[in-house]
Amino acid sequence: MSELAEQVVAGMLARDEFSRWLGVELIEHAPGRCTLRMRVRGDMVNGFGVAHGGIAFSLADSAMAFAANDTANVTVAVDNSISYPAAIRVDDELVATAERETGSRKLAYYRVVVRRQDGETVALFRGTVYRTAQQHPIEQTS
Amino acid sequence: MSELAEQVVAGMLARDEFSRWLGVELIEHAPGRCTLRMRVRGDMVNGFGVAHGGIAFSLADSAMAFAANDTANVTVAVDNSISYPAAIRVDDELVATAERETGSRKLAYYRVVVRRQDGETVALFRGTVYRTAQQHPIEQTS
Amino acid sequence: MSELAEQVVAGMLARDEFSRWLGVELIEHAPGRCTLRMRVRGDMVNGFGVAHGGIAFSLADSAMAFAANDTANVTVAVDNSISYPAAIRVDDELVATAERETGSRKLAYYRVVVRRQDGETVALFRGTVYRTAQQHPIEQTS
Amino acid sequence: MSELAEQVVAGMLARDEFSRWLGVELIEHAPGRCTLRMRVRGDMVNGFGVAHGGIAFSLADSAMAFAANDTANVTVAVDNSISYPAAIRVDDELVATAERETGSRKLAYYRVVVRRQDGETVALFRGTVYRTAQQHPIEQTS
Repeated sequence: MSELAEQVVAGMLARDEFSRWLGVELIEHAPGRCTLRMRVRGDMVNGFGVAHGGIAFSLADSAMAFAANDTANVTVAVDNSISYPAAIRVDDELVATAERETGSRKLAYYRVVVRRQDGETVALFRGTVYRTAQQHPIEQTS
Repeated sequence: MSELAEQVVAGMLARDEFSRWLGVELIEHAPGRCTLRMRVRGDMVNGFGVAHGGIAFSLADSAMAFAANDTANVTVAVDNSISYPAAIRVDDELVATAERETGSRKLAYYRVVVRRQDGETVALFRGTVYRTAQQHPIEQTS
Repeated sequence: MSELAEQVVAGMLARDEFSRWLGVELIEHAPGRCTLRMRVRGDMVNGFGVAHGGIAFSLADSAMAFAANDTANVTVAVDNSISYPAAIRVDDELVATAERETGSRKLAYYRVVVRRQDGETVALFRGTVYRTAQQHPIEQTS
Repeated sequence: MSELAEQVVAGMLARDEFSRWLGVELIEHAPGRCTLRMRVRGDMVNGFGVAHGGIAFSLADSAMAFAANDTANVTVAVDNSISYPAAIRVDDELVATAERETGSRKLAYYRVVVRRQDGETVALFRGTVYRTAQQHPIEQTS
């Protein structure tokens, strides 16, 4: 992928404290596409002892953010939705794959599928993003 | 509210490790209704230096879960959606108010509004929940 | 409300062939707000003999469109979602009330509740709209 | 596909007055899958002279309903969402392809893509369905 997109995502990852807390690992990145992996820990459960709904959502949201910020313009989420076909448990390894479905100049539509280590789909995420006029801060490298 | 609902939510809160990490505080709880408060910390930001989308989502999701588990039956999220009308920053204090809109015997529909300390709406969340046949584990108190 | 908004909605209604087929009647209109009424006919049912899901959706979508086009700029739907808490039958009279929840300069968030003649909520609709740079065609009146 | 599923969909189509008004044509049907086609007419436009948002929604909703009713149990929509990446005009020919993404015993998740004659995606639809305990009425054939 383009050097610019690589720099943008490297910069985003470096500043993304919450994705670091989640423990996300960047598996693949290309324009309009991103795959992340993480392992569910004991401090991520809800009151039923399974992963809090916010965990799979956050992983999917990060994957979409990295996939969507593939140009010089800061691109932000407008609307997201998520469904949970199966429960996620402590020690499950999750892989989220974000893909751009289609879009126009200003708006684009992403789909993220989150799967468990056994291949089962545990979350279906859909997001709409808006390309702002603001530029990404790209660190000068000497 | 009923003693049962109080016990259910007390038990859920006690086991909800992720809501504890978020720092949620229970402000109000009644059948079909819950208000939570939290403060955004530096370890909750995304690559743009504002609160990660998963933070407001998780807060809203917790508020809905506590509001919806007001009977003996474990009630789980089916579909959630969220929109972000305004950015959330470190040190912002968020208040999420979940309210049951309507429902049938098995399914119910919730709406959660997340507001900032200045009254601005920062997230609009909608969720559908499904009442399972499973009973909540209620700890015996002597 | 402003004369401009009145002209915009009058023009939209006059050209809206599908809302006419639905039989929508404008009950109330104000900036960011609109109430429509219609009666379900026999040619609006689906394969189960109840109103097709598209009927309540279309009514809600029209109500949002009239509520959201309250300035000189053409405003279009980006994302919509709908839930169906109760069935709608032939001869039911539906009232849809659209209200702006919040918004920024470019994007705004609407909520539409559709109720039956007995007051029961039969559809919950949520929509995000985008204000384009295009101007409404306002007919000159002599 | 099974004889039962064929009978169920034939019966649904025969009673679906609104899909007939839309002019939907059944292109393909298999368990968890359905493709429909229709042509946009002049009586389907909104106040901007393009297809009313309810038209693509209704087409997608019908495609999902036929795909999802592939067993003896009546299966109904719980939550639907739709996005509109591109405008639809009079005389456009639309093809909607519904596919089951995943599901459990009671709930299933569908995705419907609506494309124009030029291959452009004009609507992205997502739906959750609930399998009721009610049986489809199957006409006896002698």
